[in-house]
Amino acid sequence: MDRDPPLYFQHHVFCCTNERPAGHKRGCCKNRGGEKLRNYMKARAKELGLAGVRINSSGCLDRCELGPSMVIYPEGVWYSVRSIEDVDEILRTHLVEGGRVERLMMPPRPADAAD
Amino acid sequence: MDRDPPLYFQHHVFCCTNERPAGHKRGCCKNRGGEKLRNYMKARAKELGLAGVRINSSGCLDRCELGPSMVIYPEGVWYSVRSIEDVDEILRTHLVEGGRVERLMMPPRPADAAD
Repeated sequence: MDRDPPLYFQHHVFCCTNERPAGHKRGCCKNRGGEKLRNYMKARAKELGLAGVRINSSGCLDRCELGPSMVIYPEGVWYSVRSIEDVDEILRTHLVEGGRVERLMMPPRPADAAD
Repeated sequence: MDRDPPLYFQHHVFCCTNERPAGHKRGCCKNRGGEKLRNYMKARAKELGLAGVRINSSGCLDRCELGPSMVIYPEGVWYSVRSIEDVDEILRTHLVEGGRVERLMMPPRPADAAD
């Protein structure tokens, strides 16, 4: 709303690090490498001295099949991030340059999806 | 950006459940009750059948002194949430009615704050 305070973080990144039991049908971001990727992203963002950027871990973001999942707010852009190189590209293109890494963006919610 | 996909969740709530060792000078949201409040909020949101709302846990949101901390995106509104009654008010006023619970909103970042 118009009177909301200014953003506390200019870009707030949430990286799913949720772990499910082995064999769960949806899998989990932790077993897909989410925690390692989050740790790298946090350390690298610090090295780069990115102002106004926060890299957080989060619980299950419910897009497990597309994970490791990351979402960046307030823009609400979701990424499937599978490697250190993917993280580097998001840091550079999205967080430094303000663009989008289109090849890593998750597809929109299907029109018939349940909540 | 104009061509970003539609929001996947209309309101995405992150509740800090981070735990620090006892005696840490900043304290932590878990010891202030953050996990219990998050669990209640998630269950109650489900009971209410809120469409397009996701209640997540998160790692440290770095506003520990004001916690238990919650932030709701894409609007970027931060709340200090100390009781079940506070959670109920945020569910009703913010997530159902689209308003703000001004008495629980965190203050803006000070102009001289470091990142």
